[in-house]
Amino acid sequence: MSNVPENAPEHCPGTQSDDAGKASACAGCPNQNICASGEASGPDPAIELIKNRLSNVRHKILVLSGKGGVGKSTVTSLLAHGLAARNPDSNVGILDADICGPSQPRVQGVRGEQVHYSGSGWSPVYVKDNLSLMSIGFLLGSPDDAVIWRGPKKNGMIKQFLSEVEWGDLDYLLIDTPPGTSDEHLSAAQYLAGAGLTGAVLVSTPQEVALLDVRKELDFCHKLGIRVLGVVENMSLFVCPNCKGRSEIFPATTGGVAQMCSELGAAPLGALPLDPLLARCCDAGRDYLAEMPLSPAVGALHSIIDKLVEACQS
Amino acid sequence: MSNVPENAPEHCPGTQSDDAGKASACAGCPNQNICASGEASGPDPAIELIKNRLSNVRHKILVLSGKGGVGKSTVTSLLAHGLAARNPDSNVGILDADICGPSQPRVQGVRGEQVHYSGSGWSPVYVKDNLSLMSIGFLLGSPDDAVIWRGPKKNGMIKQFLSEVEWGDLDYLLIDTPPGTSDEHLSAAQYLAGAGLTGAVLVSTPQEVALLDVRKELDFCHKLGIRVLGVVENMSLFVCPNCKGRSEIFPATTGGVAQMCSELGAAPLGALPLDPLLARCCDAGRDYLAEMPLSPAVGALHSIIDKLVEACQS
Repeated sequence: MSNVPENAPEHCPGTQSDDAGKASACAGCPNQNICASGEASGPDPAIELIKNRLSNVRHKILVLSGKGGVGKSTVTSLLAHGLAARNPDSNVGILDADICGPSQPRVQGVRGEQVHYSGSGWSPVYVKDNLSLMSIGFLLGSPDDAVIWRGPKKNGMIKQFLSEVEWGDLDYLLIDTPPGTSDEHLSAAQYLAGAGLTGAVLVSTPQEVALLDVRKELDFCHKLGIRVLGVVENMSLFVCPNCKGRSEIFPATTGGVAQMCSELGAAPLGALPLDPLLARCCDAGRDYLAEMPLSPAVGALHSIIDKLVEACQS
Repeated sequence: MSNVPENAPEHCPGTQSDDAGKASACAGCPNQNICASGEASGPDPAIELIKNRLSNVRHKILVLSGKGGVGKSTVTSLLAHGLAARNPDSNVGILDADICGPSQPRVQGVRGEQVHYSGSGWSPVYVKDNLSLMSIGFLLGSPDDAVIWRGPKKNGMIKQFLSEVEWGDLDYLLIDTPPGTSDEHLSAAQYLAGAGLTGAVLVSTPQEVALLDVRKELDFCHKLGIRVLGVVENMSLFVCPNCKGRSEIFPATTGGVAQMCSELGAAPLGALPLDPLLARCCDAGRDYLAEMPLSPAVGALHSIIDKLVEACQS
């Protein structure tokens, strides 16, 4: 059945009609563009496709940050490595949904790898036996190429990534999103509506300018009905390699993540100290967990992962 | 005159026609959506409007970053304060084009201010006598509200900001953009095409994961014909407040901004050290330049501004 919105002009062909947005009656209608683009014609069939494709993925987790540069990709990578190391029988995947700035191929040390497309879909790149990655970074001619895409094209890419990657059986799929609350986030949330999203992990640094954007991200989750699994505070302290003095690089002038969580009823997952060796490992694509097993950051990470696993299962 | 693209179907009404995207011949044409949306029908009249509106703005500068969280908003603020302080007779404006995460109202200490709309347009908020700011942050009901907008709506907001803010006479308008190379950047560049964009300042931290995205941003500028005025390296060193030892928080494993600039033929403008007091000032909306005139970061900033002014005038 065609449906006709309340504010439709006379002789509206209905949003489900083949003429939607194209009939002469559509001229001047505020919905004309959306009808003509086909976005209004009922639920996107991709939602069903994605549901089937991800039916063997147990937990689907969005990693969100609000503000950029708080270490979202680094935290995604640490969580994935930590989850994969915690149980060698489990399988973990990372979907790098940051279309304009994909950093996972470098952080994981698999830059320049090729992804293969077969009848069953794209094969992700395996970082470890039980850790796989898909990123637009693998599809670019040169790593310096800019992906200058407007919203609709980015949405199409996310749809393709969600519906066409052959992940196999996964226990955890971590979706690394770009900063903000716009196309990529809406698309990921909407396309995953049928498949079932376990929830979102938010990442922030302690200073108020970053928390400002995390509050917006919490509001976004609330508005879209996405469960917040918890908030990770990153770069919370810096230990001087020389004098071991502790410095607040990004001072928590308003109480940091802990205070914000208690105000807004979110669960703090823990705090990761700032370690220049971690930045070095990310640049070089080395596995920080394996190289620095005794660092304070790795200790903190294990406790964060324990809480995350618990939140996923409750 | 109607124009007909090369890949058009038979009986294409032409992209400038009123029937573009709506005629029966358009069914199945790959350009149908773009034609129906009106995007193909000649130059946007807003470009002319923006040209007139900004005719009293001498230098229009985009501040771009590629990766988020490298301190783009902080650097924008420092540059604006520095330019305004350098010559008290000059006028500087900041347009905060980060729709999903506007941080300028807090950084400038004018959160909660009201903007007024009159017959001549929006009046910006004055941070100092010769420094004004416009941000979507002023238009939100609560600072925690998420702006969950897809591309087209963000583009509309940027168009409005460029065409409807009554800046008065300005020597410099700094446009603080969100991370990435997508809607906001394309729109700002395209709408400013008529008005004349002086160029872009790029901001990066020294580690390779950030430079990766700056290379993309340079490619973006190159593809859109935007002149690169120079690159600022932010958070390049941390001086321990305890032992004065210098640490590379984000190690320049691949040579940092200087090396990247020499490879890609861009001009390095200088490096700003990491100072937790600066993060504190940003959180509290205080003017770091006025409060810490003798800090190494302020010294570095003045030299960066000298180079920027020179680049603008050449």
